[in-house]
Amino acid sequence: MNLRINRDRLIGRLQALAQIGRIDGGGVCRLALTDEDRQGRDLVMGWMKELGLEVTVDRIGNVVGVRAGREAGDPVMTGSHIDTVATGGRYDGNLGVLAGLEVIETLNEAKLTTRLPLGVGFFTNEEGARFTPDMMGSAVHQGVFAVEDMLKVVGVDGKVLGEELRQIGYAGSAATGNNRAACFIELHIEQGPVLENEGFDIAAVEGVQGISWTEYRLGGTSNHAGTTPMNLRQDAGFVAAAITIEARRIALQMGGAQVATVGVNELSPGLVNVIAKQALVIVDLRNTDETLLCQAEQFMAKFVKTICAAEGVSCEIRNLVRFKPVEFDADMVSLVADTASSLGYSVKKMPSGAGHDAQMFAPNCPTTMIFIPSRDGISHNVAEYSTTEQIHKGAEVLLQVLLAKAA
Amino acid sequence: MNLRINRDRLIGRLQALAQIGRIDGGGVCRLALTDEDRQGRDLVMGWMKELGLEVTVDRIGNVVGVRAGREAGDPVMTGSHIDTVATGGRYDGNLGVLAGLEVIETLNEAKLTTRLPLGVGFFTNEEGARFTPDMMGSAVHQGVFAVEDMLKVVGVDGKVLGEELRQIGYAGSAATGNNRAACFIELHIEQGPVLENEGFDIAAVEGVQGISWTEYRLGGTSNHAGTTPMNLRQDAGFVAAAITIEARRIALQMGGAQVATVGVNELSPGLVNVIAKQALVIVDLRNTDETLLCQAEQFMAKFVKTICAAEGVSCEIRNLVRFKPVEFDADMVSLVADTASSLGYSVKKMPSGAGHDAQMFAPNCPTTMIFIPSRDGISHNVAEYSTTEQIHKGAEVLLQVLLAKAA
Repeated sequence: MNLRINRDRLIGRLQALAQIGRIDGGGVCRLALTDEDRQGRDLVMGWMKELGLEVTVDRIGNVVGVRAGREAGDPVMTGSHIDTVATGGRYDGNLGVLAGLEVIETLNEAKLTTRLPLGVGFFTNEEGARFTPDMMGSAVHQGVFAVEDMLKVVGVDGKVLGEELRQIGYAGSAATGNNRAACFIELHIEQGPVLENEGFDIAAVEGVQGISWTEYRLGGTSNHAGTTPMNLRQDAGFVAAAITIEARRIALQMGGAQVATVGVNELSPGLVNVIAKQALVIVDLRNTDETLLCQAEQFMAKFVKTICAAEGVSCEIRNLVRFKPVEFDADMVSLVADTASSLGYSVKKMPSGAGHDAQMFAPNCPTTMIFIPSRDGISHNVAEYSTTEQIHKGAEVLLQVLLAKAA
Repeated sequence: MNLRINRDRLIGRLQALAQIGRIDGGGVCRLALTDEDRQGRDLVMGWMKELGLEVTVDRIGNVVGVRAGREAGDPVMTGSHIDTVATGGRYDGNLGVLAGLEVIETLNEAKLTTRLPLGVGFFTNEEGARFTPDMMGSAVHQGVFAVEDMLKVVGVDGKVLGEELRQIGYAGSAATGNNRAACFIELHIEQGPVLENEGFDIAAVEGVQGISWTEYRLGGTSNHAGTTPMNLRQDAGFVAAAITIEARRIALQMGGAQVATVGVNELSPGLVNVIAKQALVIVDLRNTDETLLCQAEQFMAKFVKTICAAEGVSCEIRNLVRFKPVEFDADMVSLVADTASSLGYSVKKMPSGAGHDAQMFAPNCPTTMIFIPSRDGISHNVAEYSTTEQIHKGAEVLLQVLLAKAA
């Protein structure tokens, strides 16, 4: 196919959407189900209607626009999300949705009708920054969570999700849980440094790392930093630090796809000259292999038990998040890789370290993702950036893959 | 001397003072120069006047009551402080002041006039919880800091010390900086577990550990916990944890009186799935030996340089507090030890791990302290506790030592 997308039009839509909830430094704050989210939704749904799509809003607020094919049936689908974190960039999620619309407009201009219908969706609360869990809309769409449960979720600001959804006018009537697609392909920024560092244009995404978040609430004894001999300390802060170091050690020792991060480490009372009575540590472990991820969890659990006993510190353990690794469809991955190559782009097959809406579709239909590079690997940050050229290449691959599946 | 203090009267005054600013759990919140501090000062100064002392208030708000001797001259002095930390106990500081008044009342009842005058003082802002530095009043009293500088200090709540002092009516007119005493002896709770653990009634305090507080502001790169390979991380949180572990390692390796604590470790942005961009760590190092304390500081500085370079994390280093170790007068220490023994109490010579007003007097006159046990070594906490019997013994030693020096 010699069809090509119009990159200026795509960049124009990205810029227009980035005005809604814009923050200093070129970033965006459009938390799920806020007024800014409503404005963003209105803009994108308006575009969908202008492009002639048949738009439905479902009970969790997912918006899907469908372009009819010559045959009826489940649509070949693309899409992503338009909610952001509080200090988000303009590409995360938004790119996948607007590139989908750009594909639609390219087909409209070419007056080309595909065999199967084509769908473009944006899914509610992918980020999970205001309401937990993340990837909520796509999970409900694909039947992973019951919509009734999710409507009751209370956000970090104390607001109830279902009420906020009504408030912004996106409590739709379309059913959830059984929305099947012929296949699903999502374009997204990498949000990591690998493509840039290794000089690739495109990633054909093989799957999503499994994620394990474990919270440790450590209880020591608050005591004077000067008067308490080292051998009489129950220092929750020391144990918290030891857990942080051990997480790194486990990741380096296991190697491969294993990563480990401690981004939360809160000491109480948090005073210079007082041994910490309490510490809250959350360990984030990820691997593409479920067996290895379990192994990393076991290493950590064993270490925590030992160090707490040695220091005389108590520990309450709570599992916050656990997703098994997701494997994408091998044929879909190869289709992305081959399509990119045939367009003259360099391509790498790799897993995703972050969760994405696509993973909710993976159990129900052939699914994969297309990544483009993120400058310095930075995301969830106003400095998030991909060049026009990189965006262009990603959208061209999306167009050709959607055409290959639908036409 | 067969004079004995009245322990019920002393406990009664401790209980009465503990009502002012009392908080749940039996503790006290009487931050320096607040309304609660004013009420506490009014109560104690009222007692001083009832006991016939000649009371002066100096420019930094120190209150000293003097009982005339048969001869003029510098008084034999005791005292401590009555300000507390936000979650303080009822003994820290208060005991030393009220035991001093109990000694005065005991002498009044016995109609005994000492050769030298006897002074009892309470010194402004010993805790440093609201205004930095701590031990401020005694330091100004002894000429370590200029009163004009201290009056300009801005507290954690943005209030200026001099204005707060006027506000509570304790901006006195007595000169500071050159107030000499014949000698200084301070009774205080240990605030540590050593006496209790080793079964001693009394400590004759040989000196005060040197204190070194160093703040490290670490700057890494905020990145995604899932998508950033381990070898591409600049994790400020990891470096913060490594510093915490190294502080412990240095203390254990050096042994002896060396202690090391990290009670402050703040990560930013502090999110589960984001590698920390910034970390604030404060290391508290203490030793009774200046050479060893310098060595510990050097070990730490070298480690921080190495780990920051290895992780690619920047570091701003700021010295927050540095006090050299203080050695108390050997004759005074022996006098305390001998007096305790002659009263039938078990006594240990040991250094103080915490700073105290007494150390400001040490360069200018023979000085020492008397410690009594703290239950579980707990202080700066509502659970701070010493038994009536322990308090009684400490006050008896104070009485006899003051008599020995003044009579």
